[in-house]
Amino acid sequence: MSVELTVEKIARAARAASRKMAGSGSAAKNQVLRTLADAIQARTAYIQAENQKDISYARKKGLSSAMIDRLTVTDATIRSMADGLMEVVQLEDPVGAVTRGWLRPNGLQVSRVRIPLGVIGIIYESRPNVTVDAAGLCIKAGNAVILRGGSEAYHSNQALAGIITGALEAAGLPGEAVQMLPIRDRSAVKALLQQEEFVDLIIPRGGEGLIRFVVQNSMIPVLKHYKGVCHVYVDESADLAMAQEISFNAKVQRPGVCNAMETLLVHRSVAPDFLPSMAKRFIKAGVEIRGCEKTCRILADAIPAEEEDWSTEYLDLILSIKVVEDMQAAISHITLYGSSHTDAIVTSDYDRAGRFVRQVDSSVVLVNASTRFNDGGQLGLGAEIGISTSKLHAFGPMGVEELTTTKFVVQGNGQIRT
Amino acid sequence: MSVELTVEKIARAARAASRKMAGSGSAAKNQVLRTLADAIQARTAYIQAENQKDISYARKKGLSSAMIDRLTVTDATIRSMADGLMEVVQLEDPVGAVTRGWLRPNGLQVSRVRIPLGVIGIIYESRPNVTVDAAGLCIKAGNAVILRGGSEAYHSNQALAGIITGALEAAGLPGEAVQMLPIRDRSAVKALLQQEEFVDLIIPRGGEGLIRFVVQNSMIPVLKHYKGVCHVYVDESADLAMAQEISFNAKVQRPGVCNAMETLLVHRSVAPDFLPSMAKRFIKAGVEIRGCEKTCRILADAIPAEEEDWSTEYLDLILSIKVVEDMQAAISHITLYGSSHTDAIVTSDYDRAGRFVRQVDSSVVLVNASTRFNDGGQLGLGAEIGISTSKLHAFGPMGVEELTTTKFVVQGNGQIRT
Repeated sequence: MSVELTVEKIARAARAASRKMAGSGSAAKNQVLRTLADAIQARTAYIQAENQKDISYARKKGLSSAMIDRLTVTDATIRSMADGLMEVVQLEDPVGAVTRGWLRPNGLQVSRVRIPLGVIGIIYESRPNVTVDAAGLCIKAGNAVILRGGSEAYHSNQALAGIITGALEAAGLPGEAVQMLPIRDRSAVKALLQQEEFVDLIIPRGGEGLIRFVVQNSMIPVLKHYKGVCHVYVDESADLAMAQEISFNAKVQRPGVCNAMETLLVHRSVAPDFLPSMAKRFIKAGVEIRGCEKTCRILADAIPAEEEDWSTEYLDLILSIKVVEDMQAAISHITLYGSSHTDAIVTSDYDRAGRFVRQVDSSVVLVNASTRFNDGGQLGLGAEIGISTSKLHAFGPMGVEELTTTKFVVQGNGQIRT
Repeated sequence: MSVELTVEKIARAARAASRKMAGSGSAAKNQVLRTLADAIQARTAYIQAENQKDISYARKKGLSSAMIDRLTVTDATIRSMADGLMEVVQLEDPVGAVTRGWLRPNGLQVSRVRIPLGVIGIIYESRPNVTVDAAGLCIKAGNAVILRGGSEAYHSNQALAGIITGALEAAGLPGEAVQMLPIRDRSAVKALLQQEEFVDLIIPRGGEGLIRFVVQNSMIPVLKHYKGVCHVYVDESADLAMAQEISFNAKVQRPGVCNAMETLLVHRSVAPDFLPSMAKRFIKAGVEIRGCEKTCRILADAIPAEEEDWSTEYLDLILSIKVVEDMQAAISHITLYGSSHTDAIVTSDYDRAGRFVRQVDSSVVLVNASTRFNDGGQLGLGAEIGISTSKLHAFGPMGVEELTTTKFVVQGNGQIRT
């Protein structure tokens, strides 16, 4: 069978399964998640044996140790997947909620009722834990999901998918509600992106190249972010000790993720006070500093930043710093170079806090807190399926509710239009 | 300048204008709408003179009288545009609403705040009144909009766009918040669909061909419906008099629109009672009936339906009728042939009403009411910008609120992640 036909068959089966998932109650869905949490722990040896095949292949192909690290399913990875599933069990089931309802003058009772999205395609790179995390959230929201993990994690993902199918069937739900694309090359992704008739949403997770490929080729709506060029602006009225803690946390606590700070903006009146001790702490932590002209005058160690630094997501221990005239200049910089992802102000000024929040057009805007809080778990949504910087449907972290939509239910007693 | 550069320049200006629109309050936005309502009435003669150019050109090109009818701006069209704007003035401004908020254990105050989407591109066909209706809703929601009307309405649309710009500027808002693409051929549409950096949403309104072209070429999220193949299912327990009124209204009241019924499904046990008098009324109103085998046995006048009838949106006085075994067969038919747009059941059975509502996967599902109620105004959303059958962001009629999104605002006092 051609790649296109294979993928269409999978998508069609997913659509059929999605109808059964939509009709299943919380009890059955939670049972799947619990069974799955038990099963992946019980079958650790099997999963790790399959994972070993991928690791050997990756070594042969000469993949970087960072890549192999991400690929490896340790005992801790298994435990964390199981714990994650049990957290999803605890989340409220969003399906069936009446989000709003009203009575029309002609007696029609109108309700907006939350329903699953239907079929979701998730395209991701090396980490096999995404297979279980994403499947768990999609199941909880009553969806079917088609997974396409990185080709380097092929055996690990097939093993996990098989266990997920078993857990679904044990609860009387269709195994086709979670399917892994069995084709290793990109043609399968391209074919999936054409299944508009059967797939409601595509979520790509990975590098900017993968995401651009998906957006360019998809007929199906895509929720994504290309990158996170996140800023902290230290205002002239900032508590400088607080500003230092927030800036350090935003850059150093986990530099390789999308909500880490990439550019620090500092009001010119506090720059001479703030930057030297801040930079000392950064340098001690191994952070390379690339500064604007004014920054370089204050920090002898800083490398002069180039134009492209301001729009670069380093995902590394590198930080660009710019001294700005005032908050308006900081906002203009964020508007020009930012990625609508996460931006923070440190200030003690009531009015400026409000203006920053209103004027910065990002999915998460923070006052006096680290950018690292742009995360579904941290913000209280429960587990997250990703972060969207497209404004449509979901802007910011996407939890289980963002995997649903609403339909209109209209109850009448014979109304017609005149 | 090339088409691509012209369109990019317009999109960039729209983005800049959108920031000013987002920061403007309800008072200024409502002032624009009121000024505009007055201005189009005051300048009726000018608008109609420009409209006459389009009509002459359309006649020369030999366009159908239906097309010319849609294109013509009568005094009533002008009044209706002005009235529509005044209705939008009355709508609640969705921007700034806190849709939800909560406190995290670490003291972070998280809010989801409603904000404008940003820049919206609307691509539509001949009716010039869409220019004013769509601009009005986008302005109310604090967005900038790029309009691309049908080439046959070129002069009418340019005239209306000029008046809108004047109304914006009179209220101190940027004229670039509403721009009409000045290029007549489809290359301008294609170029617009590539402006992902500056445009947040595309709404195409028109025939299926236009909409498929937009979806295939767009890098930007699209809200749309391809077609409305809407059903009424008459259950065995239906009040047959009510069923007749609803079915007649759904088919005949305005057959050329997307929420008109295209297929009538009738439970076999009531078909012999229901169909003859129903058909008589349809035939008297000029409706052509295409029936399944069982229908044709009951109705001598019915033409045998072919397979493709079941998925056809006639938009005309044509109706397909199918006799079904039971409600489950009706739902299966809707699932297979429907378009997720609007479907209704007529029943007096409590349990079946509930099951139909849960199992039919359409944007609007009705019990004992006409499909013609799938309309923003009729359902109480106020004016609508269109109807979406994509599940993402908006499923069903889209009002002013659907032209907004939410961002996360996080207020802290020094929180960092550990």
